[in-house]
Amino acid sequence: MQHDQILLHPDRLLPGDPAQRDIARQLYRHVVDAPLVCPHGHCEASWFATDAPFANATDLLITPDHYLLRMLVSQGVSYDDLGVPRADGSRSAADPRDVWRLFARHYHLFRGTPSRIWMDHAFHEILEVPEALTADTADAAYDHINAKLAEPGFRPRALFDRFKIEVLATTDGATDDLAHHQALKDEGFKGIIPTFRPDAVTNPLRPDFTTSMARLAEQTGENVATWPGYLDALRARRAAFIALGATATDHGVLYATTADLPAAQCQSLLDAAMVGTLGADDAALFEAQMLFEMARMSVDDGLVMQIHAGSRRNYASRILDTYGRDKGFDIPRPTEWLEALHPLLDRFGFEPNFALILYTLDETTYSRELAPLAGAFPSVTLGAPWWFFDAPDGMRRYRSIVTETAGFYNTAGFVDDTRAFLSIPARHDLFRRVEAGNLARLVAEHVLRFDEALEVIEALTVGLPRRAYRLPDPKA
Amino acid sequence: MQHDQILLHPDRLLPGDPAQRDIARQLYRHVVDAPLVCPHGHCEASWFATDAPFANATDLLITPDHYLLRMLVSQGVSYDDLGVPRADGSRSAADPRDVWRLFARHYHLFRGTPSRIWMDHAFHEILEVPEALTADTADAAYDHINAKLAEPGFRPRALFDRFKIEVLATTDGATDDLAHHQALKDEGFKGIIPTFRPDAVTNPLRPDFTTSMARLAEQTGENVATWPGYLDALRARRAAFIALGATATDHGVLYATTADLPAAQCQSLLDAAMVGTLGADDAALFEAQMLFEMARMSVDDGLVMQIHAGSRRNYASRILDTYGRDKGFDIPRPTEWLEALHPLLDRFGFEPNFALILYTLDETTYSRELAPLAGAFPSVTLGAPWWFFDAPDGMRRYRSIVTETAGFYNTAGFVDDTRAFLSIPARHDLFRRVEAGNLARLVAEHVLRFDEALEVIEALTVGLPRRAYRLPDPKA
Amino acid sequence: MQHDQILLHPDRLLPGDPAQRDIARQLYRHVVDAPLVCPHGHCEASWFATDAPFANATDLLITPDHYLLRMLVSQGVSYDDLGVPRADGSRSAADPRDVWRLFARHYHLFRGTPSRIWMDHAFHEILEVPEALTADTADAAYDHINAKLAEPGFRPRALFDRFKIEVLATTDGATDDLAHHQALKDEGFKGIIPTFRPDAVTNPLRPDFTTSMARLAEQTGENVATWPGYLDALRARRAAFIALGATATDHGVLYATTADLPAAQCQSLLDAAMVGTLGADDAALFEAQMLFEMARMSVDDGLVMQIHAGSRRNYASRILDTYGRDKGFDIPRPTEWLEALHPLLDRFGFEPNFALILYTLDETTYSRELAPLAGAFPSVTLGAPWWFFDAPDGMRRYRSIVTETAGFYNTAGFVDDTRAFLSIPARHDLFRRVEAGNLARLVAEHVLRFDEALEVIEALTVGLPRRAYRLPDPKA
Repeated sequence: MQHDQILLHPDRLLPGDPAQRDIARQLYRHVVDAPLVCPHGHCEASWFATDAPFANATDLLITPDHYLLRMLVSQGVSYDDLGVPRADGSRSAADPRDVWRLFARHYHLFRGTPSRIWMDHAFHEILEVPEALTADTADAAYDHINAKLAEPGFRPRALFDRFKIEVLATTDGATDDLAHHQALKDEGFKGIIPTFRPDAVTNPLRPDFTTSMARLAEQTGENVATWPGYLDALRARRAAFIALGATATDHGVLYATTADLPAAQCQSLLDAAMVGTLGADDAALFEAQMLFEMARMSVDDGLVMQIHAGSRRNYASRILDTYGRDKGFDIPRPTEWLEALHPLLDRFGFEPNFALILYTLDETTYSRELAPLAGAFPSVTLGAPWWFFDAPDGMRRYRSIVTETAGFYNTAGFVDDTRAFLSIPARHDLFRRVEAGNLARLVAEHVLRFDEALEVIEALTVGLPRRAYRLPDPKA
Repeated sequence: MQHDQILLHPDRLLPGDPAQRDIARQLYRHVVDAPLVCPHGHCEASWFATDAPFANATDLLITPDHYLLRMLVSQGVSYDDLGVPRADGSRSAADPRDVWRLFARHYHLFRGTPSRIWMDHAFHEILEVPEALTADTADAAYDHINAKLAEPGFRPRALFDRFKIEVLATTDGATDDLAHHQALKDEGFKGIIPTFRPDAVTNPLRPDFTTSMARLAEQTGENVATWPGYLDALRARRAAFIALGATATDHGVLYATTADLPAAQCQSLLDAAMVGTLGADDAALFEAQMLFEMARMSVDDGLVMQIHAGSRRNYASRILDTYGRDKGFDIPRPTEWLEALHPLLDRFGFEPNFALILYTLDETTYSRELAPLAGAFPSVTLGAPWWFFDAPDGMRRYRSIVTETAGFYNTAGFVDDTRAFLSIPARHDLFRRVEAGNLARLVAEHVLRFDEALEVIEALTVGLPRRAYRLPDPKA
Repeated sequence: MQHDQILLHPDRLLPGDPAQRDIARQLYRHVVDAPLVCPHGHCEASWFATDAPFANATDLLITPDHYLLRMLVSQGVSYDDLGVPRADGSRSAADPRDVWRLFARHYHLFRGTPSRIWMDHAFHEILEVPEALTADTADAAYDHINAKLAEPGFRPRALFDRFKIEVLATTDGATDDLAHHQALKDEGFKGIIPTFRPDAVTNPLRPDFTTSMARLAEQTGENVATWPGYLDALRARRAAFIALGATATDHGVLYATTADLPAAQCQSLLDAAMVGTLGADDAALFEAQMLFEMARMSVDDGLVMQIHAGSRRNYASRILDTYGRDKGFDIPRPTEWLEALHPLLDRFGFEPNFALILYTLDETTYSRELAPLAGAFPSVTLGAPWWFFDAPDGMRRYRSIVTETAGFYNTAGFVDDTRAFLSIPARHDLFRRVEAGNLARLVAEHVLRFDEALEVIEALTVGLPRRAYRLPDPKA
């Protein structure tokens, strides 16, 4: 239909050149129905444990999405008008419908950004909104979406099935009780697994460090004020995650620095951390040592280690103070990987049981450090383009820069990395289209044969993320 | 005409792919006749105040253009042979016609560079030179151009009209008397406005700092040896610029560092600056504080603040000593934006009246810092690709890298940033063609609808620079 | 033939777009038969002096190629299984045929990498292997290649002729005796020349520094423990290289730092270097001074100076300890060029007899520092994309980023930079195809005329490397 084509063209994101587009179409079709492997993301296990319907279009799609918030704020919209709750717990008086209208009026701001692509996919493919979103259609779309969300087919579990999600990893603090994961397991619901993210107990400068350490001690019965007790407590929590299906850890750090310090110095750092007297340099050293310890534990327990480095969090004090974390003011900074990882890689880089996946916000390190590292160390895999780079041209740059050094098979495929559940199919679809285009170019230039490109796109879509994250093929 | 097509092809710089080219042609045609908005550049108000004819092809087109000089020097041509005056005031004996011939013999060096595109446009479109420039046609072209320049239609004001310049901002020192701007205003000639560039009184290491400060004191009657007097003097000059139409300031700095120091420390730094005893670190601190003060004044008086950071000026001592500044030996260096701007943005980043436009020579910061900053802070806009990057592939990289994070609407459109008056239409035309191609790709890939692309190219051409620089739409 | 086209398509690496491909074909044909100018590489003069047949497919093509080794190791293959000798001299028990089979089984790993392109070219074009390499065809290919290598037409000199190599520079330590070069000269065999690479006597932290210095003293009769004697010894060796045809030096450094220290400090550094007590910072200072001295000697003796900077060598201790240097664990790091080269360029940058070619592993410096330097200093030329970037997209990025600032004529064309002799034609062919595509785009976009593109591709292929390395045109 002409109308449908305008809303969501079947060839969108494929190359403009007719010959390449034809090849790309065939490659895309080869994986369009492949299951979604989602080994890293920020959905909540509770959604699936409770299977409660989503509240409304605004609360589901707008308010929790920091990509949308930051763009609107950059053009003068206020968080209050967007209904973002304040850090003091007060809720803005903004009506969800008004927020939706505000968003619709500014929808042109997202032209050329992946948010536009994700939203259009969610609107027209998943939620079956019949018209393009504009100020004029805002109300109709809002009512349409809310009506859909009330239907049984739009509850979390129904969508999980409809999206063909093979596995979905959540991201959980080390001291989370994992009650919803336990409930899902008890029930026999398969496909939702936790990820061990211990930042709150490995970064002593986090405001929640002290309370998290107390909770860690309580949960595990360990004396976390001693270095061995602290490490044992972490081992115990990793084991608890593994018992509920976890295959990976995740570490969000400003620097990728690692260190292998003497035990006495570790204890001193911990002592100071416990009483809150660590300076910035020593806190960084503590984190560096903890990355090293996490690697050591991964060698032992087999959890794949992810490092996400380089985000300067909460850059704008005013936003942090008023609205709290994760509000769009995390800005990337240059990342040094080589010397930073040297202690860790020199010690564990060739351990057969060790697997490390690296994510960067500094694209200059793709060709300079990361592809050469992933293309040499058996333990290192290069993660997908992250955050700002999880977008068509970001993916194209990544693949073009990385492949000539590291090949395809030292990369980890795709992760959707989102808490926007309805955008998950859109993100995987975008990835598959863009990679189909990337490979079509290589086929058109006779660098790859078509049969090889088919194998590669299948690997990128399913095989490589399964392997990188040690996820079984459910049909194998 | 076949011949015309060879000299200046109507489809030049549009995509090679026929389908995309067709879309690009339509987008380009939509803005080909739009007025030129020129909010940042280095033309002289005197040209328009006096309206004197330009002297000859060499003095107009070759000698003042540091892009041309540097390329010729890189291949062994000497400044003396190019007629570049020495710093001691002595003028080379080079005959302008000989310089022109020398340039013509080396014209192949500019293949693949924007200079070639700008020059060809000026030659064949504006000056109607009938043949391609070669050693053989050099004399004929020289005579042809000089004859044109003697015609009334090639005087500055006639060209200003012919080029459809809506507004042209010059760049002026804080202590410039702005006499030509005053004369233009008195006469009622509209469209030429000054820009406040105070580097000579905010960078204590400039050789002209002391004389400039003396002039500042004299102009304003303030005691510039006291911190409050110094700031008041700057406020007074900004007001004088505003009275003559200025809407922006400009700051050329090596580092983007900003600082908010105690008043006593400011006074100490000023004391040392006044007697010339400031070390390099303290001089940098002084500049950092002054960026902060300029931002504060912008909040008060509404002047848009531009920062151009990262050029290591006068890298070759021999060239500086013999020929002076701006001779092609300014080389970019890495620029740290994030921590550098933090004091300024944390204080003024959300002020409704504050507007900051950032220009970089470090392309790695497009995706890592600048697009995320522009895509979050309401006050921050990302300036056009600057200097070495004001070229087709430079613009393509910029747009591809920036858009997915910051969208189109957090960028400032185009600035020609030149003192080469005859190249201004060429530069805007190049921008429009390249952006038409960029957008045509997005339309061909069904990422944007064609009607959206029309809106975007119009915004990039006219709407965004007007908004970013607070220039009124003259027809509104 | 359909079959041949699948193995090695005649249009491989040319643009997918039909119009651009047609232009690219014509440009490529213009240089397809041009001689190979090879001014920088790592072949051995002994091969040509002795003209002994190559041993077998594995020893020729696999074991010495660190690109292949690193990729296989990155996927869990061991050096021992690859037949890589250990640093202690023990040889692995791996049978060459088994290594070949192992390689063939993993050949898919090289999809999208230049190794695949080079290997396919060597297999099918040079060695006439009739089938694509797979696990199934491995044995047949191995036997086929070994049979070929035993033929007279596959000895080094026959291949040298067949490849149309105009000149091939080896890379030799300062204290190499150059016996094979001497023998070739005595015999009248033309086209093999040495390159002076003094790293072992200019980097005091090399394990072979002391023995190399002793050898230097012995060879030259100079007292290398005195600064003047040390420099004289180096001058003598440079003269010996020049006598055997050398036109260039090469310097492999972690940092590009240069220094011009007082003579007394030079002597102190040398004193400490001789007794092995130099710390890391002073060793770096020694190297910085030696780059400066090498530049000064180049001004005197006319040897072109190459700097290859930014490789962090032997990053994995385990690999270095077990297998030695050059095993795939050299990883790039960020390179600062501007302040680093300032002492050298400020002193020698305008010397008419000085020529400096810069090679980087930090692509961010192409646009920020290197193109602006090469586009300004008459002595500076920008070397070809190096190492990880000697690949189709690496070359495309380089040309796109560099040209708009430095043009084509401040670049040095292509160097194959390899010890994989059979890959040399493949590498030049790849370069010519990619540059034909780059230029075809500019022609299709009407930025260059076709006749200009012909001139440019000829210059890139032959003229510019000859000029940059001061190699005569043998037919001139």
